[in-house]
Amino acid sequence: MSVNEPQRITSRDNALLKDLRRLAQGNGEYRKQGRVWIEGDHLCSAALLRGWRPALAVFSESYWPLATAHIAQAATKNVVIDDALMKTISDLPSPAPMAFLLDLPAAPTLDVQAPTVVLDRVQDAGNVGSILRSAAAFGFTQVAALKGTALLWSPKVLRAGMGAHFGLRLVEGLVADDLAALQVPLLVTSSHEGDWLHRAALPWPCAWVLGHEGQGVDAALAARAAQAVRIAQPGGEESLNVAAAAAICLHASGVSRA
Amino acid sequence: MSVNEPQRITSRDNALLKDLRRLAQGNGEYRKQGRVWIEGDHLCSAALLRGWRPALAVFSESYWPLATAHIAQAATKNVVIDDALMKTISDLPSPAPMAFLLDLPAAPTLDVQAPTVVLDRVQDAGNVGSILRSAAAFGFTQVAALKGTALLWSPKVLRAGMGAHFGLRLVEGLVADDLAALQVPLLVTSSHEGDWLHRAALPWPCAWVLGHEGQGVDAALAARAAQAVRIAQPGGEESLNVAAAAAICLHASGVSRA
Repeated sequence: MSVNEPQRITSRDNALLKDLRRLAQGNGEYRKQGRVWIEGDHLCSAALLRGWRPALAVFSESYWPLATAHIAQAATKNVVIDDALMKTISDLPSPAPMAFLLDLPAAPTLDVQAPTVVLDRVQDAGNVGSILRSAAAFGFTQVAALKGTALLWSPKVLRAGMGAHFGLRLVEGLVADDLAALQVPLLVTSSHEGDWLHRAALPWPCAWVLGHEGQGVDAALAARAAQAVRIAQPGGEESLNVAAAAAICLHASGVSRA
Repeated sequence: MSVNEPQRITSRDNALLKDLRRLAQGNGEYRKQGRVWIEGDHLCSAALLRGWRPALAVFSESYWPLATAHIAQAATKNVVIDDALMKTISDLPSPAPMAFLLDLPAAPTLDVQAPTVVLDRVQDAGNVGSILRSAAAFGFTQVAALKGTALLWSPKVLRAGMGAHFGLRLVEGLVADDLAALQVPLLVTSSHEGDWLHRAALPWPCAWVLGHEGQGVDAALAARAAQAVRIAQPGGEESLNVAAAAAICLHASGVSRA
């Protein structure tokens, strides 16, 4: 079947649509199915730009004639469904009129020499997505998530990641001992010890460890860090959002290489 | 009535509880009532620390005997209600067992000389809360929100702000022309012009302008900026989350004063 002859599905109870609904609406479902559902032109274009090739593209009936060639010809197979049916798949308040189904590669192992961001039980999907964007922007190539962190390929983290997922090596489900294999120094922030970040000499490559929104980095893990730094807070002892602290640290590392 | 003799309310249909429910669950309700509902020990303590005095404190029946003195004696009036009734007020997935009702002061006007963060239609409550935290941490004393920005005292922004609200001058509902009164220079980030932020000389005090998640800062407003700077992205042309970009910029300003 040519890509110009998409398959049409009309039944709400179609088995494929049921699978897609589970993917789009369940945070851990991608681990069962080994694939992810990514919605909207922005995310799909980001995946294509990074060399991903979708197994399947799904379009709403009204959007299909408007789809650009690079989207319409990207997948091995296209499916077109009624607009109302399209909306039953998504969990978004405003569902997108097109989406890709991407097969995930086998779960990657840690690259022990990569510039890395370690997530120690970071809970909030928006925070995790923001950190992935900062990691990609500032030259980190790997994100290593310890158990208890929001699932990296979950729909909410994908949405917040704005495409950063597709350029990063994402390793999840790790325990702290797995980090012992890393050959790059671990860095943490501290509220009371270490050099001020804006004056510190930072190693590159390195691995920044970012912790739980309420509890911070686990104490035993922080004790393994090669270096602790402090973020100066001339306004007083406010706490920073973890993704805000991450942005400051990852930016400082990124520009210290220049 | 002494604070040790709290009023008990048992009816779900009590007029006060109805007002509180509207406050806790409606984003713009605080503007009608002129007061805010803040939940949980952390936020309430942050308000007390900044000198706010609650008009009313509400406790669940099971929490009331456990309340610390500084919380139990903070308000002019205490109300104790059944645990189940307490849960009907909150919009949180895990409602807190205590909360304050705070009268908001009359809407403040712009302090034209204050170090300021301008929010130009920033939509996401989590982003706005994170930016408020960064503003407070890095020595900015005022946040000026243009129309179209998430409502600063809405329950979700309050939650994400983690107490930063109580130390900031929060001015909202502004239009771009109102900013002409500011006597501090406006700064914006740019993707293509200006000095690199990490090498730029930054004025202090100043006003950083942060824009809409998708559209950025309005072009006409950006054109009024005294200075544009670029955030170096050695990882490539990824975009940053607006609260991540804000953290980097506000931190750079904060430490440039030292």
